[in-house]
Amino acid sequence: MPTLIRVSLLLAAASIAAPALADEGMWTYDNFPAAKMRAKYGWAPDAAWLEHARLGSIRLTLGCSASLVSSDGLVMTNHHCVRECVSELADAQHDYIANGFYAAAGAEEKKCPAMEANQLVKITDVTKQVEAATAGKSDRAFHEAERAAKAQIESACGTAADVRCEVVTLYQGGVYDLYKYKRYQDVRVVFAPEETAAFFGGDPDNFTFPRYDLDAAFVRIYDGGAPLHTDTFLKFAAKGVKQGDIAFTSGNPGSTERDDTLAELIFQRDAAQPFILNLYSELRGVLTEFATKGPEQARTSKTLLFGVENSLKAIKGRQLALVEGPLVADKARAEKEFRRRVAADLKLAKQYGGAWDAVAAAVAHERNIYVRGFLLERVPHRMSDLLGHAVALNRYSAEIGKPDGQRLEEFADANFPALRQEIVSPAPIHGDLEKTVLTWWLTKVREYLGTSDPDVRALLGNNSPEEIADMLVTGTKLADAPLRAKLLEGGANAIKAYHDSLIDFARTLDVPARTVRTDSENHVKAVITKNAALIAKAHFALEGKAAYPDATFTLRLSYGAVAGYEENGRTVKPTTNFAGAYAHATGRDPFKLPDSWVKAQKSVDPSAQLNFVSTNDIIGGNSGSPVIGRDGEAIGLIFDGNIQSLGGDFGYDVSQNRAIAVDVTGIAEALKNIYHADRLVKELTR
Amino acid sequence: MPTLIRVSLLLAAASIAAPALADEGMWTYDNFPAAKMRAKYGWAPDAAWLEHARLGSIRLTLGCSASLVSSDGLVMTNHHCVRECVSELADAQHDYIANGFYAAAGAEEKKCPAMEANQLVKITDVTKQVEAATAGKSDRAFHEAERAAKAQIESACGTAADVRCEVVTLYQGGVYDLYKYKRYQDVRVVFAPEETAAFFGGDPDNFTFPRYDLDAAFVRIYDGGAPLHTDTFLKFAAKGVKQGDIAFTSGNPGSTERDDTLAELIFQRDAAQPFILNLYSELRGVLTEFATKGPEQARTSKTLLFGVENSLKAIKGRQLALVEGPLVADKARAEKEFRRRVAADLKLAKQYGGAWDAVAAAVAHERNIYVRGFLLERVPHRMSDLLGHAVALNRYSAEIGKPDGQRLEEFADANFPALRQEIVSPAPIHGDLEKTVLTWWLTKVREYLGTSDPDVRALLGNNSPEEIADMLVTGTKLADAPLRAKLLEGGANAIKAYHDSLIDFARTLDVPARTVRTDSENHVKAVITKNAALIAKAHFALEGKAAYPDATFTLRLSYGAVAGYEENGRTVKPTTNFAGAYAHATGRDPFKLPDSWVKAQKSVDPSAQLNFVSTNDIIGGNSGSPVIGRDGEAIGLIFDGNIQSLGGDFGYDVSQNRAIAVDVTGIAEALKNIYHADRLVKELTR
Repeated sequence: MPTLIRVSLLLAAASIAAPALADEGMWTYDNFPAAKMRAKYGWAPDAAWLEHARLGSIRLTLGCSASLVSSDGLVMTNHHCVRECVSELADAQHDYIANGFYAAAGAEEKKCPAMEANQLVKITDVTKQVEAATAGKSDRAFHEAERAAKAQIESACGTAADVRCEVVTLYQGGVYDLYKYKRYQDVRVVFAPEETAAFFGGDPDNFTFPRYDLDAAFVRIYDGGAPLHTDTFLKFAAKGVKQGDIAFTSGNPGSTERDDTLAELIFQRDAAQPFILNLYSELRGVLTEFATKGPEQARTSKTLLFGVENSLKAIKGRQLALVEGPLVADKARAEKEFRRRVAADLKLAKQYGGAWDAVAAAVAHERNIYVRGFLLERVPHRMSDLLGHAVALNRYSAEIGKPDGQRLEEFADANFPALRQEIVSPAPIHGDLEKTVLTWWLTKVREYLGTSDPDVRALLGNNSPEEIADMLVTGTKLADAPLRAKLLEGGANAIKAYHDSLIDFARTLDVPARTVRTDSENHVKAVITKNAALIAKAHFALEGKAAYPDATFTLRLSYGAVAGYEENGRTVKPTTNFAGAYAHATGRDPFKLPDSWVKAQKSVDPSAQLNFVSTNDIIGGNSGSPVIGRDGEAIGLIFDGNIQSLGGDFGYDVSQNRAIAVDVTGIAEALKNIYHADRLVKELTR
Repeated sequence: MPTLIRVSLLLAAASIAAPALADEGMWTYDNFPAAKMRAKYGWAPDAAWLEHARLGSIRLTLGCSASLVSSDGLVMTNHHCVRECVSELADAQHDYIANGFYAAAGAEEKKCPAMEANQLVKITDVTKQVEAATAGKSDRAFHEAERAAKAQIESACGTAADVRCEVVTLYQGGVYDLYKYKRYQDVRVVFAPEETAAFFGGDPDNFTFPRYDLDAAFVRIYDGGAPLHTDTFLKFAAKGVKQGDIAFTSGNPGSTERDDTLAELIFQRDAAQPFILNLYSELRGVLTEFATKGPEQARTSKTLLFGVENSLKAIKGRQLALVEGPLVADKARAEKEFRRRVAADLKLAKQYGGAWDAVAAAVAHERNIYVRGFLLERVPHRMSDLLGHAVALNRYSAEIGKPDGQRLEEFADANFPALRQEIVSPAPIHGDLEKTVLTWWLTKVREYLGTSDPDVRALLGNNSPEEIADMLVTGTKLADAPLRAKLLEGGANAIKAYHDSLIDFARTLDVPARTVRTDSENHVKAVITKNAALIAKAHFALEGKAAYPDATFTLRLSYGAVAGYEENGRTVKPTTNFAGAYAHATGRDPFKLPDSWVKAQKSVDPSAQLNFVSTNDIIGGNSGSPVIGRDGEAIGLIFDGNIQSLGGDFGYDVSQNRAIAVDVTGIAEALKNIYHADRLVKELTR
C-alpha cells in the first residue's frame, strides 16, 4: 500500500530559514551548530560522535527513519513503519497486526516485500556543478537542465546496485549536496507487538501526551543472504531518561515549509489544505464504513485507514497553525522587512528583488491546476495499489528508453530500484478494497473536475465510477506480482504489447496526468526552485549562513533535552510508565491493552518508563528516529509529536513543541517480561 | 429524518442590508420596492397582485416553499421537498423514490407523516411591544425578556390549533413583526416522479446550468378530512417563459448573513464552515459506503445522503465566496467607513458606536464553544431520528411545565405542534442506519472534544462508540411511533417514569447539551441580537430604511427576469427543453432517465421547455417557490441556484447569480405525455 507517513510532502517549497531559536533546527550533519549547542548545554558532540550517530542512522524508503541497534544488523523503528510490511505478510489465518509478530529464531525472520534501508555514508557539495548547468535558464529549460545535471551526478556516483546516490536540493537551491547511501534491499521483520500495544489510544490519543504506546518494531538488514555485520550501532541505554537529559534525534524529517514565501503559505491555507482535508475526510468515512462489512475488510483496510487518519490529523494541525497562529502575520511582516532591505541595496535588488513576485505568480498558476494534479497524478498512486502498479508499468515502458535526466524523477536510475521493488512486491492486493477506493477516487475526479470536462469524459465515458472501478479490478491480471515482474523484465516492448482493462485505463489516464504534472514541474516547481534559490542567496548575502535548510527527507540531527511542558495551565510531566498504561486502559478499543499485557501485568515493573517527551525539532518522516543520549547510546525511539508540534511545518516553539518517544528501557522491559523475546533481549543487551 | 434543506442556518447573524442593487433583494411583502422595480421594468405589482401572490404561497415546515395551484388545495413543490415523505411511505415492496408515486384517484393520496403547510395571512408590527420588554436589559436578561415578550405575543395571537403565530426578528432586531399563518397538518402526497427524473444529473449537476430536472411534486392540503377549497391559487401558465420575461419568486429564503459584521464573516470562514465541511465530508463517505451494503441500505440512507451532499456543496460555495471572492475585503472596507461615520456623530457614537466590538467579543466566545455546541446540540437532532425523538421527549418532560416564554424555543406554544408532529410521525426508523450514524457521531464527539473531556466520559464511559450505538438502538422501544405518542399523551410524569437505554442516554446528553446551548443563547446570540439591532438603527439613522432584511425563513418576494448569463467566456442560454434532456442522458446513473421517459420519448414534444434560469435573488429555503409571471400565474418552480449563487448568503451579483426553475409547461408536458396523470393534468389546466 502506498504509504502516507510522509504526510507533509504537499508542495515543493521556498527560501531560507531565519536564524534558529533555542533547540530549533533540523541540522545537516555537515553543518551542526556545535558552538550554539555548547552555549546552551555546556557540551556539544565532536566529529567522532557525529559520525557514529550518522552511521547508526537508517532511512527506510517507505518514509520512515530507523537505527542500527546491534552488530548483527538489527534495526529499530516504529511499529507504524513496519505496519504495511507486517500487514502484507499476514493472511486470513495469521493476523500479525492484531497478534503481533516475533521470530523466535533467525530463520523465522520474514522479508518485507517493499522495504529498502539506506545508510548515509558521504555528503559532497555539488552546487557549482548544478549551477553551471542551469546558468541563465528558466522555466522548463531550467527544470530540465537541473534534472539532467542531478541525474548525471547521481549516475556517476551510483555505479553499484548497493549504492544509492541523490543530489539533494538544500536551502531551496541555495545548496546542492550529493548524498551517497549504502543501499540494502533485503530487510526482514523480527518483532512487532500487537497493534493495540503500539497504537494504544488510537486516533483519539494520536498527537497527544501523556502516552503509553509501544510503537516499536525490529527489522534486520541482510547482506548477501546473511545478517549484516556492523561495528557501528547505537547501544541500548540501560537507564531510563529523566527531565533535563540531553537528547538528540537523528532522522529524516520529510518536508517543512518554514521558508515559504507569504504567497505559498496563503495558498496552503486557503486552497491546498482545505481541499485535502475535505477529500481525505470523505475517504476516511468510506474506509471506516468499509471496515464494518466484516473482519476481513477491517483487516485489509486498516493500514490505509491509519494512513488517512494520520494525514488528516497532521494537516488539521498545519491548518490550525496557519489559521489561528501568528505564522502568516509574522511571515508577512518578516518578508516585507527583508524585501525592503533587499530593495535598499541596488545590486541585491537587481539580482534578487523580483524573486518574491515570481514565486507569487507561480503560486497563482499552481492554484489553477492543483486540484487536477492532485486527483490525476497523486491520488491514484497513493490510494490504489493496483492502479499504482499499472501506472508505473505503463510509464516504465515510456521512460526507460529516455536519457536518465529526461525521465520522470521516479524512473531516474537513482530512484527506480525503490519503485521496482514496489512494483514486484508480492504484497497481497485486496480486490474489494481496491474497488471501493477506485470508486471513491473516480467519483471525486468527476465531482471536482466536472462531468463535462474532457479528461473526465475520457476516463469515464458513459459509465459510472462503480462500473469503471469494477471493470478495472475484475478485468486485470496485474494483481499477480510474478506477472508484473515478468512484464518489467520484458521491458518496454513487452509492456506495450500487454493489454488489459487496467493498464489500458492507465494509458488513458497518463495523458492528462502527464500534462498537469509537466505544467506543474515547468511552470510552478521550476519557477519556485529558481526564485527560492535567489531568495536564499539574498539571505546568505545579508545574514550569512547560520541557518538550517528546510527538511528534505534526508538525514538531520536535532539537539534538545527531555522536558515537560505547560498545557491549559497544567504541567505535563516528561515521562510515563507501565503503571500509567494499565491505569489508562478501559478494556475497549482503542484503549484496550492486548492480552499479553493483561496477563503479564504482575511480572512487569510498573515504574519502568514507557514514553517521554523532548524538545527535539521533528516532523513527519522522523518516525522511527533514534533518540540518542550524550554518550551516543540509544535512549529512545521517536514515534510522534504533540498536537502543538503539528504547526512545525511552518515554525517551531520550544515552549510547546514536543517530540514523543518510546523509552528504550520500556522496550526492553516489554520484550523481556511481556513478550519473553529472549533472543532479542540478549542481542540488545549484550 | 431531520431535514438538511435549510442548509444555510449556521449562525444567528447581524446587522442591516446595504441599499439593494438591481434585482437584488428578498423583500418582505409589506415593504415591496414597487417604485424601484417600476424604474427598471416599467411595471410593478399593485396591492391586489401582492395579496394574491402571498395567499398563493405556502411554507412547508420541513424547510421548503410551495404554492397553491388549484381550487382544491393542490400544492406544487419540489420533489426534494417531498422526498422524505415519499421515502417514509415506501417499503421494501414499494420504492416510491425509484419508481415515483401517483395517486390516480383522490382516495389513493397518502398522508405525509410529518408535513405541515402554512399560509401567511397577516403581518403586524410589534417592535414597540418587544422593545418595551427588553429596554435596558442585556445578555441573559435581554434574551429572556425578548423570548418572553415574543412568546406572549405569539400565544395571544395563536389561540386556535389551526393558527400559527410567529414573532419574526427582522433587520436583526431593528424590527419585530408578528407573522400569522393558517396552519394545515393534513398534507397528502399526490404525485412525485422517479428520483432519476427529479434529480437527473445528480450531485455532479447539482448547482449547475443547463439542467434537465423534473424536480417537481404535488401534495394536497386537506381540511377537516376533505381537500381544501380555495379561491386563491396560482394558475399554471399556458406558455413557456422566454428571455426577458418578468419573473417573481415568492418563498421562504432560510437565512442569509449579508449584514454580518466582519468578525462574524471571519468566524464563518476560518472556523465554522471548515469544521462542518470536514465533518460532513466524512459522514458522506460513511453513508456512501453504507449504501453499498445492499439495496435496502441504499434505499434507507438515500435521503440523508442527499441532504448531506446538498449541504456540502452549498457550504463549499459559501466558503469559496468568502475565501476567493471580494466579500470579506468589501465588508472590511464598508464597515470601517460606516463606523467612521457613526464615530463622527457624538450622539450616534454614544448610542451605537460600541456595537461592533460587542459583536466581535461574542463571536470570540462563540469560537470557543461552537464545536461542542454543534456536536452535542445540533448533530443528534439532524442526523439520528431515534436520538432526536428521545431528546425531544425527554426535554418535553422538563419544558412543558414552564411558562411559555421560558421554554426552549421549539417547545414554545407556537412551535411545538410542528415538533409534536415529528415526534409522533410513523415514518419508519432503520436500525442499522441509526447505528451507523450514531457510531459516526459518537466517534466525532470523542475526536473533537477529546477522550478525557468530562462530557465525553459521561457519554461513553469505558465503552466504544460502536458499543454505545448498538446499546442505544437495540435497547430502546422508541422506534415505535405509538409508544412515543402514548408517552407524549402521558405528559411529563409518564415520560419521567419511562426508562430505556436511549432515553436514559438522552438524559445524560441533555446536561452538557443544555449547558452549551444556554451559553450560546445568553452570551452569543443575545449579545449579537442586541448589538446587531443597534447597528441596524445606526443604518436607519444615517441611511433611512430602503433595504430588505436578511432572510429568516419567512415569506419574501423577489423580482427579476428570465435571463441567461456569461460563464467562462460562453453564453448560457436561459431555457432548456426535453430534447436536451434526452441528449444529456448516458443511460448510467446519475445521467439515466427513468424507463417512463425512455418509453415516452416519441410522444413528448422535444421543444417543450423543461428548466430555465432567472435573476431572482434566492437562497436555501426557497426550494419549491413558485415563479410568478406578471399576470399572477405560475410560470415556474424554483429548485436550485447556479454555482455562482452559492455565495448568495453573503451577497448578490446580478451578472452571475441565477435561480433555476422547472418551467410549468414542462411539468404539464411530463404529466400528460410521460406519466399520463390525467386527473392531475385536468385539475391544473381547467
